[in-house]
Amino acid sequence: MNPTIELLKSHRSIRKFKDQKIPQDLFEELIRAGQSAATSNHVQAYTIIHVVNPENRKKIAELAGGQSYVADASDFLVFCADMKRSTEAAERAGADVVRGTTEQLVVASVDTALMAQNVAIAAESEGLGLCYIGGIRNNPAEVADILRLPEHVYPVFGMCLGYPDQNPEVKPRLPVSAILKEDYYDDRRDEELVAEFDDRMHRYYLKRTGGNKETNWSEQLKPLFTTKLRPHMRDFLNGRGFGVK
Amino acid sequence: MNPTIELLKSHRSIRKFKDQKIPQDLFEELIRAGQSAATSNHVQAYTIIHVVNPENRKKIAELAGGQSYVADASDFLVFCADMKRSTEAAERAGADVVRGTTEQLVVASVDTALMAQNVAIAAESEGLGLCYIGGIRNNPAEVADILRLPEHVYPVFGMCLGYPDQNPEVKPRLPVSAILKEDYYDDRRDEELVAEFDDRMHRYYLKRTGGNKETNWSEQLKPLFTTKLRPHMRDFLNGRGFGVK
Repeated sequence: MNPTIELLKSHRSIRKFKDQKIPQDLFEELIRAGQSAATSNHVQAYTIIHVVNPENRKKIAELAGGQSYVADASDFLVFCADMKRSTEAAERAGADVVRGTTEQLVVASVDTALMAQNVAIAAESEGLGLCYIGGIRNNPAEVADILRLPEHVYPVFGMCLGYPDQNPEVKPRLPVSAILKEDYYDDRRDEELVAEFDDRMHRYYLKRTGGNKETNWSEQLKPLFTTKLRPHMRDFLNGRGFGVK
Repeated sequence: MNPTIELLKSHRSIRKFKDQKIPQDLFEELIRAGQSAATSNHVQAYTIIHVVNPENRKKIAELAGGQSYVADASDFLVFCADMKRSTEAAERAGADVVRGTTEQLVVASVDTALMAQNVAIAAESEGLGLCYIGGIRNNPAEVADILRLPEHVYPVFGMCLGYPDQNPEVKPRLPVSAILKEDYYDDRRDEELVAEFDDRMHRYYLKRTGGNKETNWSEQLKPLFTTKLRPHMRDFLNGRGFGVK
């Protein structure tokens, strides 16, 4: 196993950061590494908003469900799917442009995620820690207002970045055999593999909490799916010109 | 710049591969590295189909728009967004589950992309090359049939993997100043920065083609947006139980 694979496999979310800034030249290097990720047809359908204003950081921390590290991390980024720049470029070159297709929603969301993951790995390779903040989708319209996002740009997730002030364990993942299938989707063993993983997560939570947390993977998922999580997302995306056609 | 960042910045798509297999233990290591990526609320909303059957590889190569490397690469993977496994696990644990929300489409697509990008980087760190195949979305229903994908699973993109038999240049990216903004979305300089990038891409295409390709970034984007690319994606995703609510 080479050091890069070792780095990838040692990822865990960091939510407590030292009071130490990321040097500007390193910060820009992380962004460049992000941009080097593959991009669908070279569209580069993303924009990063680097939120520096402390008041806005606090507001977004609240909007994301009271996640204080959004305000406290050295740096906080919002990764936005952006179909504005590329479609306007094509328009200026004379194209009669179609916008708002579901395909563009998929392209821009995937482009943004690939880019962000490169930023994450570049950061970890320099000893930084991070956590993704999906919570900005709790109140995406308010976040979009704060960042003054125009139509055809939507905030996919945030990312807290900084020097780690904690050292959490790596969280287990499903066995490879559950998520990797040969030639076709055969789920005959899924129930059994999930049960094994539930046992493993049960032990993990017990150990982490000194025996206080009686739960497992399936139990932890329940609240995510029993209520309609972020039911506004469909109207929000349609309203921003994503996915209506 | 450390070797991992150097690796990230040296990415380019590989479409020609040596006739050399990826060892099985390395292959599994790549998948494990993929799984180590961040995942929204630990949902792990993805499945990889490793397409081994040569007939199916040929069919998918055709369906993706005649991309022969889909059939020829050492390995071909289809990365699927999967809300089936996790929602069924929650259901077995007693949850009355809501499916088909737009939020779940975003979560599963992003989870899948983060995981795939880790696979890509792990592969490149071992001297392998790859290209993403968005073309499977040209005919996603047919691809889903070949892979026997159930409801709540959709094929986001493919990936060709293997030992490179070509050494293309790294393709330029937009300047950092175009895609990174401080505090809010300020696009006053976008037109100027895109024009600069168009010049850069113009020189890149001329050089690559010995002076034969007179084009630039904006020109290359035009055909993507003038016709409705993959207009079936909305109905396809709705039909698979993604994004209807």
